[in-house]
Amino acid sequence: MNDLPQVHMKTGLPERVRIYEVGARDGLQNEKTIIDLETKVEFIERLIAAGLPIVEATSFVHPEWVPQLADAADVVARLPLDGPLPLPVLVPNVRGLARALESGCQHIAIFASATEAFALKNLNCSFSEQFDTFKPVVDQAVRAGVDVRGYVSMCFGDPWEGRVELDRVVETGLRLFDLGISELSLGDTIGVGTPGHVHDLISAFGDAGVGSDRLALHFHDTYGQALANTYAALEASITTFDASAGGIGGCPYAKSATGNLATEDLVWMLNGLGIEHGVDLDVLVSTSTWMAGKLGRPSPSAVVRALGGVSA
Amino acid sequence: MNDLPQVHMKTGLPERVRIYEVGARDGLQNEKTIIDLETKVEFIERLIAAGLPIVEATSFVHPEWVPQLADAADVVARLPLDGPLPLPVLVPNVRGLARALESGCQHIAIFASATEAFALKNLNCSFSEQFDTFKPVVDQAVRAGVDVRGYVSMCFGDPWEGRVELDRVVETGLRLFDLGISELSLGDTIGVGTPGHVHDLISAFGDAGVGSDRLALHFHDTYGQALANTYAALEASITTFDASAGGIGGCPYAKSATGNLATEDLVWMLNGLGIEHGVDLDVLVSTSTWMAGKLGRPSPSAVVRALGGVSA
Repeated sequence: MNDLPQVHMKTGLPERVRIYEVGARDGLQNEKTIIDLETKVEFIERLIAAGLPIVEATSFVHPEWVPQLADAADVVARLPLDGPLPLPVLVPNVRGLARALESGCQHIAIFASATEAFALKNLNCSFSEQFDTFKPVVDQAVRAGVDVRGYVSMCFGDPWEGRVELDRVVETGLRLFDLGISELSLGDTIGVGTPGHVHDLISAFGDAGVGSDRLALHFHDTYGQALANTYAALEASITTFDASAGGIGGCPYAKSATGNLATEDLVWMLNGLGIEHGVDLDVLVSTSTWMAGKLGRPSPSAVVRALGGVSA
Repeated sequence: MNDLPQVHMKTGLPERVRIYEVGARDGLQNEKTIIDLETKVEFIERLIAAGLPIVEATSFVHPEWVPQLADAADVVARLPLDGPLPLPVLVPNVRGLARALESGCQHIAIFASATEAFALKNLNCSFSEQFDTFKPVVDQAVRAGVDVRGYVSMCFGDPWEGRVELDRVVETGLRLFDLGISELSLGDTIGVGTPGHVHDLISAFGDAGVGSDRLALHFHDTYGQALANTYAALEASITTFDASAGGIGGCPYAKSATGNLATEDLVWMLNGLGIEHGVDLDVLVSTSTWMAGKLGRPSPSAVVRALGGVSA
């Protein structure tokens, strides 16, 4: 079936997209199984070899919060941080930033919340206070010549608050841009969004002066909507999509174990649409099949299950 | 989370769609577990109670081919075939039609192949010969005042032939309309299609004089594309979608066990888009949770896994 999917381009869609691979960070931090250092490094190396243009490597969050990524410094010590490929790391505060800078990281990401409830639960501060935490992080990073991405969680709904208004998400993003981030990733952390909502949120950012070139979309597949939402975002000219190889990483705040949009399922759709991305699907499926074996469960990715298996 | 998904309508989409529920037939015929008569009847009754506007009940295919549905006559004997709700049954040939008519069925469906290879494998005849088989079936059904739906398999790719040309699918559909069917369901039997392909196939039918009001789309989620393809079909004005409660029914011709588009995942998206459908999601999730217990495996539907459980 090497000639499948058949290529049928659609007018009005981008010619090329950038896949921002989050499996090694957002994926592994939400898996129950703790993966050893050697396997993590091999995972990242294999993701790079598959042609992914940017691979988020790990998180410098305190090990007590995320024991799965306690070896962050050891992971990045093994990676080509000075190479052409960006290998961002997550940092929660100035202490995390200091560790990341000491390790030689050139790209960081900070994570904000669009809601009061999730700020309190995940960041231990109020919605407004989070920006006070981020300001010195972004200031110091920018002074060090380090690029900063901003994530916003709960952009399409919140497990405690329910509805999240578009204006609130736009406000959160604008305040992060004001601090100095270069790119904003809008996260549907609990996977409840649908295509019209995606369209409206991107439009609301456009109305506020933030074009699609400064936005990334970060979908979770908890309610099966991730790829439909991706297609709606493509129609709204978004060209950066976060995805997790093999779809690993359940959201700990939803009942389901369903996680990030699977990179392979995204690549299958892009291949069918004739949209360039630079990723070798066979190498990626092989990588995710191998990682599913390490995690001890079948891959949540439909493409990996169809083309690969549960272990290498 | 009763106020999720948030409703965001999108211009250009239909205001209302009809969900053609195939779980009791396409779902159960492809499950390994054989479900007993009482459970099947209860399943169909619960699907009706959930508000589904049309529920395909079973198949009068020879029991040696599909032992899961060997009790077809017993199932329909328990159903309100004279009621306002259509309860179609699949028939492969005039013998199957005779059994369906004897049982009082008012709506039947026939199943054709867009490819030579699948016609030979599934129908034991060539692509051209299949229409000779269908002609007396449709003739006799129409004379009996029975409505006939036509399914076409392998519309987006074939596991043996690979590519399937749009023209071939359109030819298949037109020949079925010439025989007298009232509605055509275009099946992505192995789930390989992508949104541009969906758009182009619907356009090709439009060019041949078949409007979106006479077409249904039947997606499988083998490669995770079903809901994105559904969204593309909505944008092309399709208003009838086949779906299977709980996503049950793997395709026996693909390596993966992933089956039909889950009705619940479709309903979640339609709810978010503000598109009317008449289905009560809670009742449906409860039904699929109960059926997952009978089948002894977690539901393939993301929404059922997120909102329900693995057993009632």
